[in-house]
Amino acid sequence: MSKESYSIQEAILYSHKMAQLSKAIWKQIEKDWQNWVKPFELNLNEHHILWICYHLNGASISEISQFGIMHVSTAFNFSKKLEERELLTFSKREEDKRNTYVELTDAGKELFEETMEAHANGTDKNTVMQASLPLKDLYGRFPEFQDLEAIVKNIYGDEYLEILDRSIASIREEY
Amino acid sequence: MSKESYSIQEAILYSHKMAQLSKAIWKQIEKDWQNWVKPFELNLNEHHILWICYHLNGASISEISQFGIMHVSTAFNFSKKLEERELLTFSKREEDKRNTYVELTDAGKELFEETMEAHANGTDKNTVMQASLPLKDLYGRFPEFQDLEAIVKNIYGDEYLEILDRSIASIREEY
Repeated sequence: MSKESYSIQEAILYSHKMAQLSKAIWKQIEKDWQNWVKPFELNLNEHHILWICYHLNGASISEISQFGIMHVSTAFNFSKKLEERELLTFSKREEDKRNTYVELTDAGKELFEETMEAHANGTDKNTVMQASLPLKDLYGRFPEFQDLEAIVKNIYGDEYLEILDRSIASIREEY
Repeated sequence: MSKESYSIQEAILYSHKMAQLSKAIWKQIEKDWQNWVKPFELNLNEHHILWICYHLNGASISEISQFGIMHVSTAFNFSKKLEERELLTFSKREEDKRNTYVELTDAGKELFEETMEAHANGTDKNTVMQASLPLKDLYGRFPEFQDLEAIVKNIYGDEYLEILDRSIASIREEY
């Protein structure tokens, strides 16, 4: 892509707007997420790991790192804490000895399901979802953000959206 | 807004997708931003404070906190560090003695302009902008994200978007 396809002004305006909007949205999601899982003595990273392992039916540390957008060491250290609480187990797979795989124990699955129940009973505390309801009323459905998806795909690769699709399919089956 | 206007499944699918997309975008912006301002011995919060004060022509600590989406104490502490480097000054205003106002010194303005020059010469390192170029080629302009704006407005109030508009107008004048 040549530099001539955009002006410096356009680039700065766009970057500035994207930074302000995505920081605003993410910080609110982070706050709500923390408040949601705190009663279960989990932090956001720990809950994100449970989420990923639950919906992907087990995952490698590198999948957790990639899809959870956390360092490999963060993914490993928080998984280790969850293992100490007997919420998950580590294993190696015969066909792939280099990666460590993580699977939820029954206790891990139960705890995750409890958090989801709390969410279902407390959607009024989900600020971003609540703030999106006027758009849902307008369109008849929640916004799809296909532009954002395209940008994320260009940055993180097709695999990221594939994992997102798998986790969405798993949620669809669940409810 | 009554609970009946959406199903639990819809709410969870939407929240999950929003969390994954906005975390992905924000974490990449954060990374690029840190790499961009590091050579100037600034961190992201410090640069955001310079940015806000530059484009709003001075700002109160509470405006910095609100628009920068950082705690008031974070806004104050990093402003203090910038004051120690003589990049900005604190003052009170006659008509509003309760708030502390921050204004950039000439050195602060110069440093900020240098960072912007570095950005203009290094837009190839702006991952999110680069990842948006295929959309720009498709639409003829960068995506506008009006849905996101509406959600941010519902969460943070009209004032947030007003400040965004003021900073965008200031960038337009600049280039």
